[in-house]
Amino acid sequence: MADNKKMVEAITSRDEDFAKWYTDIVKKAELVDYSGVKGCMVIRPYGYAIWENIQRDLDRRFKETGHENVYMPMFIPESLLQKEKDHVEGFAPECAWVTIGGSEKLSERLVVRPTSETLFCEHYAKIINTYRDLPKLYNQWCSVVRWEKTTRPFLRTSEFLWQEGHTMHETQEEAEAETLQMLRVYEDFYRETLAIPAVVGRKTEKEKFAGAEATYTIEPMMHNGVALQGGTTHYFGTGFAESFDITFQGRDNKLHFPHQTSWGVSTRMIGAIIMVHGDDDGLILPPRVAPIQVAVVPIAQHKEGVLDKAYEVAETLKKQFRVKIDASDNSPGWKFSQYEMQGVPLRLELGPKDIEKNQCVLVRRDTREKIFVSLDNLADEIAKLLDTIHDAMYQRALENMQAKTFEARTFDEFLTTAKETPGFIKAMWCGDTACEEKIKEETGGVKSRCIPFEEENLSDVCVCCGKPAKHMVYWGKQY
Amino acid sequence: MADNKKMVEAITSRDEDFAKWYTDIVKKAELVDYSGVKGCMVIRPYGYAIWENIQRDLDRRFKETGHENVYMPMFIPESLLQKEKDHVEGFAPECAWVTIGGSEKLSERLVVRPTSETLFCEHYAKIINTYRDLPKLYNQWCSVVRWEKTTRPFLRTSEFLWQEGHTMHETQEEAEAETLQMLRVYEDFYRETLAIPAVVGRKTEKEKFAGAEATYTIEPMMHNGVALQGGTTHYFGTGFAESFDITFQGRDNKLHFPHQTSWGVSTRMIGAIIMVHGDDDGLILPPRVAPIQVAVVPIAQHKEGVLDKAYEVAETLKKQFRVKIDASDNSPGWKFSQYEMQGVPLRLELGPKDIEKNQCVLVRRDTREKIFVSLDNLADEIAKLLDTIHDAMYQRALENMQAKTFEARTFDEFLTTAKETPGFIKAMWCGDTACEEKIKEETGGVKSRCIPFEEENLSDVCVCCGKPAKHMVYWGKQY
Repeated sequence: MADNKKMVEAITSRDEDFAKWYTDIVKKAELVDYSGVKGCMVIRPYGYAIWENIQRDLDRRFKETGHENVYMPMFIPESLLQKEKDHVEGFAPECAWVTIGGSEKLSERLVVRPTSETLFCEHYAKIINTYRDLPKLYNQWCSVVRWEKTTRPFLRTSEFLWQEGHTMHETQEEAEAETLQMLRVYEDFYRETLAIPAVVGRKTEKEKFAGAEATYTIEPMMHNGVALQGGTTHYFGTGFAESFDITFQGRDNKLHFPHQTSWGVSTRMIGAIIMVHGDDDGLILPPRVAPIQVAVVPIAQHKEGVLDKAYEVAETLKKQFRVKIDASDNSPGWKFSQYEMQGVPLRLELGPKDIEKNQCVLVRRDTREKIFVSLDNLADEIAKLLDTIHDAMYQRALENMQAKTFEARTFDEFLTTAKETPGFIKAMWCGDTACEEKIKEETGGVKSRCIPFEEENLSDVCVCCGKPAKHMVYWGKQY
Repeated sequence: MADNKKMVEAITSRDEDFAKWYTDIVKKAELVDYSGVKGCMVIRPYGYAIWENIQRDLDRRFKETGHENVYMPMFIPESLLQKEKDHVEGFAPECAWVTIGGSEKLSERLVVRPTSETLFCEHYAKIINTYRDLPKLYNQWCSVVRWEKTTRPFLRTSEFLWQEGHTMHETQEEAEAETLQMLRVYEDFYRETLAIPAVVGRKTEKEKFAGAEATYTIEPMMHNGVALQGGTTHYFGTGFAESFDITFQGRDNKLHFPHQTSWGVSTRMIGAIIMVHGDDDGLILPPRVAPIQVAVVPIAQHKEGVLDKAYEVAETLKKQFRVKIDASDNSPGWKFSQYEMQGVPLRLELGPKDIEKNQCVLVRRDTREKIFVSLDNLADEIAKLLDTIHDAMYQRALENMQAKTFEARTFDEFLTTAKETPGFIKAMWCGDTACEEKIKEETGGVKSRCIPFEEENLSDVCVCCGKPAKHMVYWGKQY
């Protein structure tokens, strides 16, 4: 029990210092290690296994919606990056440049990809000729580099893992439908797999992606009320196509520019999982991405028959679930803390008395509820419980988001709410960037999150300037 | 048929110009596209789908042997790379250097990882403390960069995709066993999944990896008799551990250095698939990695009921196989050529007469054999046929390798064989690097491939210098 206590004490309380609580978890749950390269992280086996489960699920969704995976080079020649002006302006300050290759100074320096629009466009210019070549629905899983001054594991690192979809379409309608479809894919994934609710909508002009005509976003709220930009999809119109001279012969036999989209989510989602679901004892992982769904802990394992039975139960469950049995010398108490810290959705305890009764004890990580279950229908019970846990986690996160979503009808109300309680603020907006900038300045960082698809009419005037309102906007601070 | 003919004519004959035949295939089968970055390639959907199938199979084998995936940063600070002297000397000439990040000159330049031993060591130094922390069995899937002067898709590119395993062990015996185990995993994978036979064994001092104590290799032979280093596993001893100050408290309560291994295979394997199995009509893909295992081509598809039946058959088969149905306007002849070019193992033809007879025609890509099969037991027949094709492909490759493996007992014999017929030459060797260098020079590039695990005694003296022989070596030119 000494070990047990020590481990629990090692985490800062969530309500006391959310930032320290977060970094404590990523270290103690062995998700990441810091590396010698500033701003880059080592993703450790337990963290990477979460990413693999995320990848598998998302990749299936991408393929079901007709997308194919490709791999583009990790370098972009400077001249290629500069072909689209808004784009290069957006990314130039964050670039890492390769200037020497094979002991020689390069005649043209190369940027390590911060995103790959330009590479996809260069390739599309070669392979798109007629409307029969469209749509092109490509995706790539890779790492990208954006030089960051202040970094935090998963949330903001100079290198991170992600997927980037890049598609080309015959018409604006098709491309816009794709942009919205992929936003829905992300929303479904957050809800069905990560148990995370979110606000979705369109970004304002100020917040949209460099070079995009429209950017859509999914914005989950962390437990402390701060937003995380959880994934974005972009409609580019024909801007890149014009810069890169990508044309196709249309059904009318004339040359046209194709309409483009891109969309991406990253390892940042692991940060969202931690900050939406975790508590003072560590991670609470959504069952569908948890590397271990059931941790089997034998009780009084030195007693005859206990370990044999525990292994037998574990082996049976492995056919259906991700199971770990811990028969190490550590005390049960230490093991309980360990798997709580790692956020394992279910702990299975099995001791001599349980074996006598042909039962075991299941303990939910999210509620600590203890459930006695007959060994005869264990797998069915676990399957049901994992779904129950998923639903309960979603519901708690939804309630947190709802409780921390406010409305503001006057600027004073806006400022007071922003100061007192972190969360989303729903407020009307005139459409001017100047008001966004003023709000950001006077609140110390509250920005427009998005214009939701279904807007409420809270008032007729902008909360900031009092001019006629064009939209209802979700506002909030962000990671 | 005009299209058909045109497509087939577009490939250079394999026997006429092997190199051009190879690049024709990678382009025409749409495996890769060249990019604007010298020496880097775009891996297109069909090529990447092969890589995904390779990854899935290998990753399962790695996990079954107890390995876990991680992700290390893509950058290595110069000082970190320099910690192990042999290692840095081996890689320095091929490095790509990042010197500018976020608009500022970096105080220490960063190399884009050519391999990640140094990063793993830096991390292991932090997480290995006692023998209880061992073994560490980590693997990473990523891209690496080695600046190459002359490049060829898949075989030698400045950036390529690979996996790199890096493990740490308590004892030399364990580490050596791991090194050999992973060589066997590669050998099994080549045989069972890629249908490629190979020679396996130990590299000579001259050919071993920078910093390794021993390097083992799998060396398949391409159709033209040239070898490809198909994968390597390395035993490092404690050299890196000493340089990086990685120690653990042993069972004897004293500090020890752990014993290290690394092992890797890359997208180069796709090059091997092409060059071992392909023919004058294009790719011939091993069924277990083929993105499309069965291409369904409806015949006289405008006739009533044909397309419906073809879709019905395809949908049923999709539950068990990777199936594509091509109901496009292209002629059946064009489709036949297309799927031959893409190396699809089985073509399924279904026309009105077949439907009347409740049958279809299966055509093997490897032998062109036509087989009439009842629709009632189609899935079973296809499963059997795919295995038959796999075995036949392996057998043909084995026969080619055996036919192009020679023995040389005198230096004259060696030089004549090397000049006349590309292939492997088995010959005795004294163990001196000088003889390897002489052989390479006088033959225009024949190098030692490996010392096989089971050596034959062809003579008592070195084929080059006549001094007492220590080993029988496989020699040959390589890609």
